[in-house]
Amino acid sequence: MIDCSAPGKVYLFGEHAVVYGEPAIACAIDLRTHVSVEERSDDIIEITAKDLELKAPIARTTIDTREGIKLEGCLDSLNSFDYIRASCDKVFEISDQSKGVNIIIESDIPVAGGIGSSAATTVATVHALLKLFDIDATRREIADIGYSVEKEVQGSASPCDTFTSAMGGVTKVEPNVSLKRLDKALTDFSFVIGLTGKPSPTSKLVKEVKELKQKNPDVILPIIETIGKLSRRGETLIKEGRFEEIGELMNVNQGLLESLGVGSDKLSNLIYSARKTGALGAKITGAGGGGCMLSLVRSSDANTVSNAMEIIGTSKVSNVESEGVRLE
Amino acid sequence: MIDCSAPGKVYLFGEHAVVYGEPAIACAIDLRTHVSVEERSDDIIEITAKDLELKAPIARTTIDTREGIKLEGCLDSLNSFDYIRASCDKVFEISDQSKGVNIIIESDIPVAGGIGSSAATTVATVHALLKLFDIDATRREIADIGYSVEKEVQGSASPCDTFTSAMGGVTKVEPNVSLKRLDKALTDFSFVIGLTGKPSPTSKLVKEVKELKQKNPDVILPIIETIGKLSRRGETLIKEGRFEEIGELMNVNQGLLESLGVGSDKLSNLIYSARKTGALGAKITGAGGGGCMLSLVRSSDANTVSNAMEIIGTSKVSNVESEGVRLE
Repeated sequence: MIDCSAPGKVYLFGEHAVVYGEPAIACAIDLRTHVSVEERSDDIIEITAKDLELKAPIARTTIDTREGIKLEGCLDSLNSFDYIRASCDKVFEISDQSKGVNIIIESDIPVAGGIGSSAATTVATVHALLKLFDIDATRREIADIGYSVEKEVQGSASPCDTFTSAMGGVTKVEPNVSLKRLDKALTDFSFVIGLTGKPSPTSKLVKEVKELKQKNPDVILPIIETIGKLSRRGETLIKEGRFEEIGELMNVNQGLLESLGVGSDKLSNLIYSARKTGALGAKITGAGGGGCMLSLVRSSDANTVSNAMEIIGTSKVSNVESEGVRLE
Repeated sequence: MIDCSAPGKVYLFGEHAVVYGEPAIACAIDLRTHVSVEERSDDIIEITAKDLELKAPIARTTIDTREGIKLEGCLDSLNSFDYIRASCDKVFEISDQSKGVNIIIESDIPVAGGIGSSAATTVATVHALLKLFDIDATRREIADIGYSVEKEVQGSASPCDTFTSAMGGVTKVEPNVSLKRLDKALTDFSFVIGLTGKPSPTSKLVKEVKELKQKNPDVILPIIETIGKLSRRGETLIKEGRFEEIGELMNVNQGLLESLGVGSDKLSNLIYSARKTGALGAKITGAGGGGCMLSLVRSSDANTVSNAMEIIGTSKVSNVESEGVRLE
């Protein structure tokens, strides 16, 4: 049995703008998805994923029929099983062989939109399957494979999610330019993540922002560019450990996300609740609409902020995770 | 007895950015302040203002001691009495004479921040006093006198408030360039104004935005410029009667105000409540922090939107007021 895990992530700056080539700053968090794989004697792929809020927690198929064939038990239109199936495809292709395999997923990452559950699942699955075939790969290579899996499943994807999950730590993603890990820990600071309990329909929201931009380019383009500036400024502030200013600019970023139309009343309530109870800054993380928000807090304030949020939704306290995908 | 009245106003676009020379679009609303003046036989100025939420509704002074002397009954640090006192000063100066006078204020405009209660009081008082001295003045002249009164009382002021109250209708204010009335009625559309019941500390908020801008000019300046673009685009849309797009851009403007840090949880709740119940757009009007928000609605939806807001705060349905300051 091979057990690998990979962390979830949050966006400190830059979601949505990253779609238009602006940089984004993400950060791995200490909530992880574990993927265990073991070879079977037959040609069946059986996936068990009890924590991923799937209508059926077990999916099954044979290797022969896997391509283009709905996994048994896979009832949702697009769900975690698709990422696992596509990861199998990709690794079978890379290794030029296939095996029947049991895949068991256990995850601490809420399936909530914006905190990287699918990227962590993908990256950990890829790593575990590569290990099963005895193929060595660097974290960066795993990130790239994970990205191609996400692109295949979603049609398009941000390289940020799989990169951050694979590499760990704080990362800067500049599409078509570079992905890099910033060597800075956010010691003494924690995140409190607020969950709305409502889905965050990423592709719908990305489309709506695109339409808004097409209708009002002279207004929306500068907003997108300004989000990019926040990411660049955020990079400097992170390197210099200037957390109060990071929080302040997270709040500015939140307003700009609101202006793109991806806010919601529940996200707003969680955000104001965090700010009122001591957060240095609070904003949507991910595509918005529903999903999650992120607050940056002094670790000593984490419980106070979290308790206040629990009145509105649910919350998770987490910290920067410096280690990316790993063999357990 | 001379009775004059002047309307309140809302900002469709541009508050805060107007401080930095960007244009703003305001609109007079059909909530009015009435000011009645009558000459007295002595040299006492007695002001009665029961609707202006003053700690003492009556203030009294003699002309001799009026300058620099606290009005009897005037307990608040800065309140409507100051505007009335300064209006007396200004008109006495213009007419080169003074008279003892009873001034009675009756107002439909909630004293709530952002809907122009002080500008309406000032403009109507100036007009009534000019009439008392038999001085003719155009609306534009009354606007200018009102602006100088507001500047004296507040230290600084936007010409937008007094201009819109004096002229009526939809107005565009471009500081140091022009103030103009847009000849377009918003027929079939109404405003539902939501009141947080909390003060909107204008000068504090203007100062905070200034500080945020000084700290992060590369981020905040483009936001301010983008608000200016919204006003310019708004002008075109108003002229062409494209109300759905006006609403959409009001929502964009709201996000940009949030990014400047002038939002609040209660404003947000009112804004999302309006959007959810049919408003075409909703945003803060005025300086924010507390005060009021504004939603643009189809007149047929006004009651639905208003009722939903009443769960959170209080609300007022109003319409564009085409007539500015007038003698009743």
